[in-house]
Amino acid sequence: MFSNVHIVLVNPSHPGNIGSTARAMKTMGFNNLSLVNPKEFPSTHADALAVGCVDILSKAKLFDDISSAVEGSNINIGLSARPRRALIPSLSIDECISYIIQNNKLTINLIFGNESSGLSNDDLLLCDHIVSLPTHDDYTSLNLAAAVQILTYELHKKTIVSNSMKKTKPKLATSKERNFFIKSLISLLEYTKFITPKNHISLTKKIHILFNKSNLENEEVNMLMGMISSISKKLKK
Amino acid sequence: MFSNVHIVLVNPSHPGNIGSTARAMKTMGFNNLSLVNPKEFPSTHADALAVGCVDILSKAKLFDDISSAVEGSNINIGLSARPRRALIPSLSIDECISYIIQNNKLTINLIFGNESSGLSNDDLLLCDHIVSLPTHDDYTSLNLAAAVQILTYELHKKTIVSNSMKKTKPKLATSKERNFFIKSLISLLEYTKFITPKNHISLTKKIHILFNKSNLENEEVNMLMGMISSISKKLKK
Repeated sequence: MFSNVHIVLVNPSHPGNIGSTARAMKTMGFNNLSLVNPKEFPSTHADALAVGCVDILSKAKLFDDISSAVEGSNINIGLSARPRRALIPSLSIDECISYIIQNNKLTINLIFGNESSGLSNDDLLLCDHIVSLPTHDDYTSLNLAAAVQILTYELHKKTIVSNSMKKTKPKLATSKERNFFIKSLISLLEYTKFITPKNHISLTKKIHILFNKSNLENEEVNMLMGMISSISKKLKK
Repeated sequence: MFSNVHIVLVNPSHPGNIGSTARAMKTMGFNNLSLVNPKEFPSTHADALAVGCVDILSKAKLFDDISSAVEGSNINIGLSARPRRALIPSLSIDECISYIIQNNKLTINLIFGNESSGLSNDDLLLCDHIVSLPTHDDYTSLNLAAAVQILTYELHKKTIVSNSMKKTKPKLATSKERNFFIKSLISLLEYTKFITPKNHISLTKKIHILFNKSNLENEEVNMLMGMISSISKKLKK
């Protein structure tokens, strides 16, 4: 399912976390694991925790350093508990999920740092984006495999939702169609003096906001344009 | 934060999972852990995995059977990978999260079964609702602590969002206000002959759908009413 996404663990210390990561990945349809300089791998402890998914461990790719691990990919997203410390654009979890789903033709690495120290500043410089998972302020120490579980779960869940929406969702209007309607509405309201030179900026902004948030379908824009035509005709009689 | 929510593990076999559950809980602001007949507890293995959160383990409540664990609560929600096998209402994950957030004055148990066998049919009969987490069809075997992590993460995340919305969300229009506007729009469009006796049912329905989905704010309805007034005045000149 997510054949374009690679989970990259950098310097993982505990082989158990590698096994748990494999299990977290497989429950959500991910198969590609890259390991950068793991402390112990292969490992019986990793295998023991990868119940039913040692296939992921056996085909995991091993790298000596993070640069080699990321060089073949299009997008690198680093997980960090401290997203604001670097000069790299940070994404919220929801932005990150949408971004990944939208770019499903590109090769994407999701990069997780060492259990204690996370990703170093040098590691983060190799990332295009940073994302941090929301945790409670009092205790932010997410386990490594738990962080992988949350991110892969979000991707799996949103993909199910977005696939089911693709099937049932009617055709949304294009911005061009929507803007043509908004422009026609504004002309009409200028004619009726609802919009005046004085309130022009604030009202046109409010009208844009209202109809932009309505997820107008193609058919609905046609109906709205029909309303405007019928009013304009009547006005000119 | 979630002082009304209790995480209940029924017959957990692996003490490591109890420790990992405590950690998963604490990262998301949960403190109340109930253990029903754990195979090994207290346990040094549990403590080792509960990095920085042995406080949750030390105040965990122990019960001999699930009935005693659930008797003091208002709502019991059981996690099951097979939600349709029982005659108990099942919730989607999003329904479950909304339900818990809406009922934050009630005592709620989130009940997780044994690692291998899950909750038994008898256990499920004690639940008011069943929820199952979305997993990939090929491999559905979520680790116990991973399931706790996902559910607590969703609750934490949605609570942050719903709190920030409470602060910033402008006042939505009431249905009465919205319907008054829709009625006025329909009258106007009958006058301009956009709505005719022939298309009346289908067009009024479409207009209702369009403006009901737009989450109109109070101020926006006022603006829309202003548009209608200005058009009506101009028409009657």
